[in-house]
Amino acid sequence: MSTLITRQTRGVFIIAATPFAEDGAVDLDSLDRLVDFYASHGVTGITILGMMGEADKLTAEERRQVIDRVLARTDLPVVVGVSDPGLDSLAALGRHAMERGAAGVMVAPTRGPAREDRVEGYFHAVASHLGADVPLVYQDFPLSTGVAVAPALIRRLSQDLPQMVMLKHEDWPGLTKISALRDHEKNEGVARLSILCGNGGLYLPQELARGADGAMTGFAYPEALVQTVALYQTGQVDAAEDLFDRYLPILRHEQQPGWGLALRKHILMKRGAIACAATRAPGPKLVKRDMEELERLMRRTEIRLKEI
Amino acid sequence: MSTLITRQTRGVFIIAATPFAEDGAVDLDSLDRLVDFYASHGVTGITILGMMGEADKLTAEERRQVIDRVLARTDLPVVVGVSDPGLDSLAALGRHAMERGAAGVMVAPTRGPAREDRVEGYFHAVASHLGADVPLVYQDFPLSTGVAVAPALIRRLSQDLPQMVMLKHEDWPGLTKISALRDHEKNEGVARLSILCGNGGLYLPQELARGADGAMTGFAYPEALVQTVALYQTGQVDAAEDLFDRYLPILRHEQQPGWGLALRKHILMKRGAIACAATRAPGPKLVKRDMEELERLMRRTEIRLKEI
Amino acid sequence: MSTLITRQTRGVFIIAATPFAEDGAVDLDSLDRLVDFYASHGVTGITILGMMGEADKLTAEERRQVIDRVLARTDLPVVVGVSDPGLDSLAALGRHAMERGAAGVMVAPTRGPAREDRVEGYFHAVASHLGADVPLVYQDFPLSTGVAVAPALIRRLSQDLPQMVMLKHEDWPGLTKISALRDHEKNEGVARLSILCGNGGLYLPQELARGADGAMTGFAYPEALVQTVALYQTGQVDAAEDLFDRYLPILRHEQQPGWGLALRKHILMKRGAIACAATRAPGPKLVKRDMEELERLMRRTEIRLKEI
Amino acid sequence: MSTLITRQTRGVFIIAATPFAEDGAVDLDSLDRLVDFYASHGVTGITILGMMGEADKLTAEERRQVIDRVLARTDLPVVVGVSDPGLDSLAALGRHAMERGAAGVMVAPTRGPAREDRVEGYFHAVASHLGADVPLVYQDFPLSTGVAVAPALIRRLSQDLPQMVMLKHEDWPGLTKISALRDHEKNEGVARLSILCGNGGLYLPQELARGADGAMTGFAYPEALVQTVALYQTGQVDAAEDLFDRYLPILRHEQQPGWGLALRKHILMKRGAIACAATRAPGPKLVKRDMEELERLMRRTEIRLKEI
Repeated sequence: MSTLITRQTRGVFIIAATPFAEDGAVDLDSLDRLVDFYASHGVTGITILGMMGEADKLTAEERRQVIDRVLARTDLPVVVGVSDPGLDSLAALGRHAMERGAAGVMVAPTRGPAREDRVEGYFHAVASHLGADVPLVYQDFPLSTGVAVAPALIRRLSQDLPQMVMLKHEDWPGLTKISALRDHEKNEGVARLSILCGNGGLYLPQELARGADGAMTGFAYPEALVQTVALYQTGQVDAAEDLFDRYLPILRHEQQPGWGLALRKHILMKRGAIACAATRAPGPKLVKRDMEELERLMRRTEIRLKEI
Repeated sequence: MSTLITRQTRGVFIIAATPFAEDGAVDLDSLDRLVDFYASHGVTGITILGMMGEADKLTAEERRQVIDRVLARTDLPVVVGVSDPGLDSLAALGRHAMERGAAGVMVAPTRGPAREDRVEGYFHAVASHLGADVPLVYQDFPLSTGVAVAPALIRRLSQDLPQMVMLKHEDWPGLTKISALRDHEKNEGVARLSILCGNGGLYLPQELARGADGAMTGFAYPEALVQTVALYQTGQVDAAEDLFDRYLPILRHEQQPGWGLALRKHILMKRGAIACAATRAPGPKLVKRDMEELERLMRRTEIRLKEI
Repeated sequence: MSTLITRQTRGVFIIAATPFAEDGAVDLDSLDRLVDFYASHGVTGITILGMMGEADKLTAEERRQVIDRVLARTDLPVVVGVSDPGLDSLAALGRHAMERGAAGVMVAPTRGPAREDRVEGYFHAVASHLGADVPLVYQDFPLSTGVAVAPALIRRLSQDLPQMVMLKHEDWPGLTKISALRDHEKNEGVARLSILCGNGGLYLPQELARGADGAMTGFAYPEALVQTVALYQTGQVDAAEDLFDRYLPILRHEQQPGWGLALRKHILMKRGAIACAATRAPGPKLVKRDMEELERLMRRTEIRLKEI
Repeated sequence: MSTLITRQTRGVFIIAATPFAEDGAVDLDSLDRLVDFYASHGVTGITILGMMGEADKLTAEERRQVIDRVLARTDLPVVVGVSDPGLDSLAALGRHAMERGAAGVMVAPTRGPAREDRVEGYFHAVASHLGADVPLVYQDFPLSTGVAVAPALIRRLSQDLPQMVMLKHEDWPGLTKISALRDHEKNEGVARLSILCGNGGLYLPQELARGADGAMTGFAYPEALVQTVALYQTGQVDAAEDLFDRYLPILRHEQQPGWGLALRKHILMKRGAIACAATRAPGPKLVKRDMEELERLMRRTEIRLKEI
């Protein structure tokens, strides 16, 4: 069984893609290979069934298969995305994941009129359905969910729900949100929140400088995230950013919303981590021109890395 | 086996609520009772697993249970909502429904950047995944999906996909859209599209006057929709609207987006059609004040009807 | 000079259309006539330059002309919509209005990522730019602004900004928001907020029953709003709703967002209140079929009223 | 008088900030200096009164002042953003700009339900109001306007409106949109469209490779855009991207929507191009931490450039 995530968790939780065969079936062998790939590049943990894991296109049964397979393969802490339109389905999947040894679950607020009172009520209900012993990650991703919330709401939830130990930060622009949260924690009685950053990693060095604990995103070069965070956390701030900047051209290409998933899977396939780059329909598909454009950026990245 | 919907289908397809027990389980006995209730009020057909049927909060298995139960209970034509983030799940449910005797399936475009080329490509993919023999309803509900499309796109899809035989019209404001589609059909070679209207029925008399074929919505007084359409279709235009207007106060109350589902279920419960008004979490819940407000409107409706 | 609006203000503030000539020029003579029309139907006050007044299509100079003309014509309290992308322009127009004798100004939150902290900061800045002596109305209209806020934010602003004396309530569905605000006022030290309701008046009887003080909307039959509120406020609750329901069919037709403005102006023209129904481009335009549909509803309304 | 933009226009049109004094007044001396700054860095043209020029916070009179001042200062072609909720105001400003010697005008579709038929009708009305002799740029920026359109609509407008000579491309992700438009132009009878790219320049090398003619964005290091485009257009593809990548870390920082304007103005001030970095309220404001973060990135950019 893996360790649970806590308010002190730091490092890189890589968002795992879900590999499919050409015919759309979940490719469990590739899933093993992908987990090994991530582990071999030094990630702290793995997050599965996130938006980039195409979780909403998997059946409940397939989601459980993915959870079981990944937790059987690795001892790394695994966070499981359990967002679902229905709270009972959400909780059932969450409990299944925890029983299998997950380190925590991640939930994004449901779409719809983004009133903060509704979001607040929703997360209290989520916590209550899951039970007090299930560590919870709030995924704060307004570009995708349409639900933008003030730092004050995150704070209130963090104070009121002891199990909400982590923020997946991807408000955009959102650097000042990290500062607002960290400033608040200087007050007595305010519990620390673990903050891991998403958005493809686009602002990782700045986020670390503002107090983030690391990254939770799916960049297909996980070693870039791992090394950036490691260098930063050992005080080598400029070296961290120098390293990061070498990957930035391809990282910003991969970060294109929606479209980026196909790019990410193509890189993972090229790097041998999965057998097939297919996304489930409806999903982005690369044509020849897109692949050539991407592979050119891959080659340029390799050249940049050799210059170190 | 029920009849398939066609481009000539007219009447009232009532959007069925999905009844739950207090504990959140699907209440299949109430589902039977509800189907009988709808049938006894003269509906032409039933649409199940629509947005108001809380379909997205049901597991795949529960959706199949609902389909099987309703199709076993009635010989009325049944349209099945099969919208799903994944095309394979969508098609699997659609095929299951058709095998059980459904009259057609209904799909709303997926959320996200509402580019018409993407919506068009999406519906071609939907049609291709389902197969050419599955009658398809386009649910055009921008207030909920965020995807507003021009009449020209509806037309193009109707021309290119022979199986797309029906539009569930709930663009708002949308009366001119009906006229635009009907005007187009005056051209040679343009196939007629069946148009049934949603939005709770709020503009039903105007929609009929512009050429709609009836209603597809879930108003908890289905007889109001049935009689309005019947009167209209037998040329009693003013009588149709007089009747409709007696129901309008409670209809406009029930039509409140999101919130209205709880009102609708409360009325259905009060009318004896279902045992329990609960929605699945996260869903709207009425408190005492809300119920009193609603029941006052119910009583006022009864008084109005006695005045005829 | 007119009276200022206060936290005790009740009644009907009609949202005035801005009349244009066929060539698009502001028709100041019709504006006089329209003000007289509203006054003759017993409104408590007039709100000018709201969204339905096409304020954003007027130049700053035209806005001042409209303000000056209306305030010269009537002694009724006049609220002036001053929403503007720039705070300095907003404040300049607000001060101009107050100098000319306006009763207060109305502001809707700016579009954009609807974070409550930003909305809160924005209204503090608005209040500070206008000055503490300018009564302020918060227009809460998420369907149009995209900015939905919790009752708690309204409360906080009401407590922190003594000059924010009124809420134009048009969250939808929003009946429970009125109750939440009124419940809160039962606590000691919580100042009352005047609540006038918009949304075309669609739920006026229910809103009054939940504690609203009246209406602020632009229905082209202002006497319907005036009489409904008057009957309600003298305890004739059923009579108020009976009266209201006679107008409901045409009210719900006029309430169609965007499109309704053209309907409203057509009715006002037909009733002799303005010379020309034109909206400024880009704006909705009625064709023959639309006018016939509307005029049929006007005739039906007249028949209903004669039945009393 | 400057040259008009055409369907063959290539290069870099820098989006000009509008400089304000601390007190919010337009700082016309800084505007002169800024124009000189841009010219000295080799831009092909200047675009004024765009979204990043805070045009919506300027009065009509101030917009004319800015137009007059810039056109008096430079012989470079100047495109003027004239987006406005009212078509008459839009056209009046456009004609003023053309009389003063502008090279063309730029318009973004109005917000609101983004139906393509409405966008198409709107641009026909815009063209008709402006007159056939005014070169028109379609600003395609869904992230800001909420209006996403298919390449087919751009094509249709380009074919139907000879004066619509340029696309400001900032759909995101949008690389395939450029390819779709260029592919279409291979057909006989299809007129070429000039395509300049926005989005802060984030994908400039990829956009050029797909057939874009250059950039129209406001990056505070205009020389980066100029040199990248120049290198690319002389066939030095890798050198172009090498150069670009050195600026990418700060470019991606500046590109943060909304927030980035304050960063951009701070850099322009630090580089001596304007006297004061203030934005008009409500607008982003940097605190000490934000400035230090930014200035660190500026220093890192300088170091990278020295490495060449």
